[in-house]
Amino acid sequence: MAKAARAEGFAHEIVAVGRRRESLEPALRDGAVDRITTDVTDGMADTDFCVLATPVSTLTALLPRVWAAAPADAVLTDVGSTKVGIVGAAERLWRTRPLAFVGAHPMAGSERSGYAVSRPGLFRGALVIVTPTDWSDVHAVKSVTEFWEALGARVSTLDPVTHDRAVAAVSHLPHLVADALVDGVLRTDPQFLEVAARGFKDTTRIAASNAQVWQEIFLENRAALGQALAAFRSALDRLEALVEAGDPAALEAELDRIRRARERLK
Amino acid sequence: MAKAARAEGFAHEIVAVGRRRESLEPALRDGAVDRITTDVTDGMADTDFCVLATPVSTLTALLPRVWAAAPADAVLTDVGSTKVGIVGAAERLWRTRPLAFVGAHPMAGSERSGYAVSRPGLFRGALVIVTPTDWSDVHAVKSVTEFWEALGARVSTLDPVTHDRAVAAVSHLPHLVADALVDGVLRTDPQFLEVAARGFKDTTRIAASNAQVWQEIFLENRAALGQALAAFRSALDRLEALVEAGDPAALEAELDRIRRARERLK
Repeated sequence: MAKAARAEGFAHEIVAVGRRRESLEPALRDGAVDRITTDVTDGMADTDFCVLATPVSTLTALLPRVWAAAPADAVLTDVGSTKVGIVGAAERLWRTRPLAFVGAHPMAGSERSGYAVSRPGLFRGALVIVTPTDWSDVHAVKSVTEFWEALGARVSTLDPVTHDRAVAAVSHLPHLVADALVDGVLRTDPQFLEVAARGFKDTTRIAASNAQVWQEIFLENRAALGQALAAFRSALDRLEALVEAGDPAALEAELDRIRRARERLK
Repeated sequence: MAKAARAEGFAHEIVAVGRRRESLEPALRDGAVDRITTDVTDGMADTDFCVLATPVSTLTALLPRVWAAAPADAVLTDVGSTKVGIVGAAERLWRTRPLAFVGAHPMAGSERSGYAVSRPGLFRGALVIVTPTDWSDVHAVKSVTEFWEALGARVSTLDPVTHDRAVAAVSHLPHLVADALVDGVLRTDPQFLEVAARGFKDTTRIAASNAQVWQEIFLENRAALGQALAAFRSALDRLEALVEAGDPAALEAELDRIRRARERLK
């Protein structure tokens, strides 16, 4: 984000706040950020726009300190991949001190993580979901939307509950399923992996993602994930029943209906 | 295959046999093949190396005519994605007339099909599994291996039963799962597809594959597919139980074990 904001001339001064200086130093050396600190209060002293970017559980735990340190007119937003928890935590804090917070979720990135793989064009063409609620500040929603549009993203709006159900179905469930595909083969005969071709590699690419990030996402969004899993299992059971019934025309009609829906995706 | 064989100077004369002349004519116009015919007996009159490339069910149905038409010294092979059925059918015919047949399965191609997307480099670096059995002619195994190596593929050998179990786990199951992922979303809320990012698109890319080809593969390999499905369901149930148990360390350890296995795949 810092590289993208810098490339677009969006920020006057970019301050990076993190737990360990060593993680922040490469960005300072590259000029991607102007100042680094491990102190939340110090880092947020003069901020007018603060983007929270930590794993989701850390985000909720960190929010009270961020809230206390933020200037009264600052806009706060985040990049967490679940929204009900963080937006709810912000709402509870807002009732004690009405800061301008708006949740957001950039749908970008890959199974790789860390500063070394960062690039300014990451968000170009990506979808960013912004999740305002009744208590959201209208100007803050506008600022957050303009920020992401400046970085080249398309911005869409959903309420936090619908957001979490949607990403459970199209992001979190596919991750869990990719993990189960790999693990099912490992538990049957790991040598089968030697004949894996592009289909298996594409389908399971996301199983190589960071384990800490994903255990947090799965736990944070477990209710919506459970609903998506149930819908997936029904669909899989129906397809298996069609295979077992052995009616080529009925099976082909179902596969073709699904194929047409998938083709519309791109 | 014709384009690749031509590019490598592998064949003296390439004859394409198909049901409809219109499907074969573009290849003749391009010079990818030297002669086209819709008559199996005519097309196989002087063949010394015959590659059967039709959907798997057609392959088994067609084999008796191919067998009757083949010259006594011809080498026959196929490119079907399941091997127990076709190799068994060939063995039964071999007991009446001992022709040199060896099954093969090139793990290449994509969700697209037809002459318009063909390219001579398709098999470069791809894995081709050759499935000889006790009754296979040693020289035929050598010919088929040399053919695929000439086209740039790596050749590996498996018995037909192990082949079908392995491809059920790493090819056919991922297809069925990709179909179920798409269908589960369609049955929950098709609008969720609007927030689908790269992860979902990669995981479900193969759900856009040709429906006829895949209904035949699923039905042909349904026994091995059922075994792979059972292993997958166990793995998915275990992961869901870990999510429901809510122990971050235990879940992360499992995800990390799977991540390491997936990373070794490249």
